[in-house]
Amino acid sequence: MARLTVPRVHIAVLLKDEILDPQGQALERALPSLGFDGVSGVRVGKHIVVDLDDDADLDVRVTAMADQLLANPVIERFTYRVEG
Amino acid sequence: MARLTVPRVHIAVLLKDEILDPQGQALERALPSLGFDGVSGVRVGKHIVVDLDDDADLDVRVTAMADQLLANPVIERFTYRVEG
Repeated sequence: MARLTVPRVHIAVLLKDEILDPQGQALERALPSLGFDGVSGVRVGKHIVVDLDDDADLDVRVTAMADQLLANPVIERFTYRVEG
Repeated sequence: MARLTVPRVHIAVLLKDEILDPQGQALERALPSLGFDGVSGVRVGKHIVVDLDDDADLDVRVTAMADQLLANPVIERFTYRVEG
C-alpha cells in the first residue's frame, strides 16, 4: 500500500496579476446576478494534480515541470502545495 | 488596509476520479519524453481564486458558488481552501 504515501502535488497556474483575465472578469460580473455579493478579485486558472513516485528533489522537479510544461512564464505564475 | 485581511478562497474544480480526463492523460504521456519520470495520476482542472468581503457563512457561500456556477456536479468535484 505504498501508493497511499506518495506525495500528491497540487499545482495552481494563474495569470500574473498584471495580465488581464477575461474569464475571471466574466465570472466576477456574473456572480451578483446569481445572488453572490461581496466577491472580488476573481481569477481563473489551471489546477494540476500529479502523484510523484517519491519526494526526492520534489521542489526542483515540480518547478521544472511547471516552468517547462504547465505554465507560460511570460504571462503566468504558479504555486504548488504538497498533500500527503 | 482592510483589504489585506479579507479571506481569499482557492477553489479547485477537478473531474471526478471515475471520469476520463484526456487532458491529464496527454500531460502524463508527455512528461517522460521531457525527462520527468515517476509521475502518475495526472488530473487537470480549474483553479479559481476569489476574494470575499468577509468570512460570514464562508462555507455556505463558497459551496453554493461552486455548485451553481463553477463546477458541473455531474462530472466534477471541488475542494477549497482559505488563505489569509
